[in-house]
Amino acid sequence: MYSVTVRDHMMIAHSLRGEVFGPAQRLHGATYVVDVEFRRPEVDADGIVIDIGLAIEALRAVLSDLSYRNLDDEPSLKGRNTTTEFLARHVFSRLVAAIRSGGLGAGAHGIESIRVTLNESHVAAATFDARVEEAST
Amino acid sequence: MYSVTVRDHMMIAHSLRGEVFGPAQRLHGATYVVDVEFRRPEVDADGIVIDIGLAIEALRAVLSDLSYRNLDDEPSLKGRNTTTEFLARHVFSRLVAAIRSGGLGAGAHGIESIRVTLNESHVAAATFDARVEEAST
Amino acid sequence: MYSVTVRDHMMIAHSLRGEVFGPAQRLHGATYVVDVEFRRPEVDADGIVIDIGLAIEALRAVLSDLSYRNLDDEPSLKGRNTTTEFLARHVFSRLVAAIRSGGLGAGAHGIESIRVTLNESHVAAATFDARVEEAST
Amino acid sequence: MYSVTVRDHMMIAHSLRGEVFGPAQRLHGATYVVDVEFRRPEVDADGIVIDIGLAIEALRAVLSDLSYRNLDDEPSLKGRNTTTEFLARHVFSRLVAAIRSGGLGAGAHGIESIRVTLNESHVAAATFDARVEEAST
Amino acid sequence: MYSVTVRDHMMIAHSLRGEVFGPAQRLHGATYVVDVEFRRPEVDADGIVIDIGLAIEALRAVLSDLSYRNLDDEPSLKGRNTTTEFLARHVFSRLVAAIRSGGLGAGAHGIESIRVTLNESHVAAATFDARVEEAST
Amino acid sequence: MYSVTVRDHMMIAHSLRGEVFGPAQRLHGATYVVDVEFRRPEVDADGIVIDIGLAIEALRAVLSDLSYRNLDDEPSLKGRNTTTEFLARHVFSRLVAAIRSGGLGAGAHGIESIRVTLNESHVAAATFDARVEEAST
Repeated sequence: MYSVTVRDHMMIAHSLRGEVFGPAQRLHGATYVVDVEFRRPEVDADGIVIDIGLAIEALRAVLSDLSYRNLDDEPSLKGRNTTTEFLARHVFSRLVAAIRSGGLGAGAHGIESIRVTLNESHVAAATFDARVEEAST
Repeated sequence: MYSVTVRDHMMIAHSLRGEVFGPAQRLHGATYVVDVEFRRPEVDADGIVIDIGLAIEALRAVLSDLSYRNLDDEPSLKGRNTTTEFLARHVFSRLVAAIRSGGLGAGAHGIESIRVTLNESHVAAATFDARVEEAST
Repeated sequence: MYSVTVRDHMMIAHSLRGEVFGPAQRLHGATYVVDVEFRRPEVDADGIVIDIGLAIEALRAVLSDLSYRNLDDEPSLKGRNTTTEFLARHVFSRLVAAIRSGGLGAGAHGIESIRVTLNESHVAAATFDARVEEAST
Repeated sequence: MYSVTVRDHMMIAHSLRGEVFGPAQRLHGATYVVDVEFRRPEVDADGIVIDIGLAIEALRAVLSDLSYRNLDDEPSLKGRNTTTEFLARHVFSRLVAAIRSGGLGAGAHGIESIRVTLNESHVAAATFDARVEEAST
Repeated sequence: MYSVTVRDHMMIAHSLRGEVFGPAQRLHGATYVVDVEFRRPEVDADGIVIDIGLAIEALRAVLSDLSYRNLDDEPSLKGRNTTTEFLARHVFSRLVAAIRSGGLGAGAHGIESIRVTLNESHVAAATFDARVEEAST
Repeated sequence: MYSVTVRDHMMIAHSLRGEVFGPAQRLHGATYVVDVEFRRPEVDADGIVIDIGLAIEALRAVLSDLSYRNLDDEPSLKGRNTTTEFLARHVFSRLVAAIRSGGLGAGAHGIESIRVTLNESHVAAATFDARVEEAST
């Protein structure tokens, strides 16, 4: 198995619903340093997993739609509890959509699975890791 | 697959038995920066992998029982070679016990596997990674 | 010169006023991973810069007063532009107050200067670094 | 599953062939900070995954053969496109050869798989991860 | 004193002249992860050290002029021994020029000193740190 | 000012005397990841701060004398409270001795000051930073 991992970040405000979240039920915020690992069994004809330039651009585009925002007010996230786990899956789904629409290049169709980790501090992170084909369309 | 990872550390003294350990056969010590990844196929009703507050507390409790100690003198580790690999499994087993006793919350029963990594320096680490059900009771 | 550095973090929401801040004028948030370096010319009678346990507790107390909050709504920050630079100085001032009130132990009166760095992502940080005696009372 | 991970680095020059590489088609260079994870289902009789001293020496030997070189001029890499992905597999293959020749100790024959990650900056990395038995002889 | 630090990177090939460089006399390469700290005694009217967006752009522009190149062939570096120390000073000088030409914004004229660190691996770095007014024009 | 920083580590056991140390009064241990910054106003004739190969060797030699040992039993540290601060100064003094004896090369006589940081975990570190001429002979 081969993989390529790229890193970027976003800065958001939000609040979480549920007693389990304790003080995080209040409006607060986070920097998520996001690591995305793209995996495939063999490299493509150019000897790579993915066009890393396109991968970085695609990740930046996904994060730009969320960054510098209060997620509680985002229409597209209406009624969702934007836990770190949820956001990791959200980034995954958006990247799969980018692959399907060709935004990551023709070679990217060979990507089998993607692992998205949101590091929310130096001591905590959440991950969503799944096969591309499992993503709902 | 979803996961949540938390980090804490412990500082211990010990010696290792066996020629393969070279100078580490002498009494020496280590800081282990410990990363624990809890995994499950789907998030719980609150949209999370685990109550991260309880996970941090549980990890701290496990590490507190070992930290600031000479492991060569710990009755519970009598006769054991406390390699980094052994200690990674020890932390895993203690966390599984915490899940089974309810110490990590009701939702934690959905945890399928745990990965424990002990980083012993900036250039070396050991990991134990297994399904929760494989842990001996 | 000797120093001791400790690290902790806080997670806040805020917005910034001024065209220079671009999209950060919107309500958003940040995780600040905070490094505090306490400095003095010589160690104390115990051979240390500061009681590190008290230093960690004091930093945690300072950050707890801000964390999981929307700083735009904090009465104590009313009318302030809570830039990373401002917050670094705020943490500095609160730690100096802790030293002066004895909260960091008798030995802490020997601390000459403090450097506070707020890491807001993997690519950006702000620092306030000053002599303790320069802090306004 | 148990694993041990060690880290070292190499500094090389090279150029890449193919339009997809953009400016990296020019002669340039990289520091690769290399993480190698050795995995096996159970530890050996000494309670370890691998003799970490031998593992560090073996990795150093593999990287020394490439470091401080222009890979475009290396006879052993003639005609190869030395992408990060290719180099990750190359390091993997060399380490498997070291295991097979006994260079990593008798216990190393229990290693089932190896994961090699080349970190090429603070924001990008490539990995090759495979079972030892899959390596061509 | 206040400061803001930003991080970016460049990937270059070069060779060094002088027996002291050992194998680095051969053509090889490096990724330099570059940290730039801008310092001033007080923040500006917006409560900041520098417009961080402009600082990031300026650093990217400076590094782009060097990245993906063989420094041995760069006309502007003709006859120079491009040690990490030399390159740190080069980045410093280019950033001072950007400040003087207004490229970092009007507020940047208050910057008193700049510290440039080039991290060349996980175990080595070089720094140039000086007052802006000391830079030759 | 120019500087070069190198990193290595040591693993030791020790106990600390004094109530302020709490549980660290018991025999325990630590991994110290050690950063040493060598500083001088101008580079030498080769365009460097120090022969980095010799610097790495010198640091390794200093740390080897302490590593894999119980510092409570080291004759050379008899009666000393081996706090992280003390050990940072100890490493500094040993490196100054290496400079004075020529072990770091002729060019190293231009080193004006050295900063030694011992990182004892991901959240705590101690530093000794002084001019070379201040070191007692």
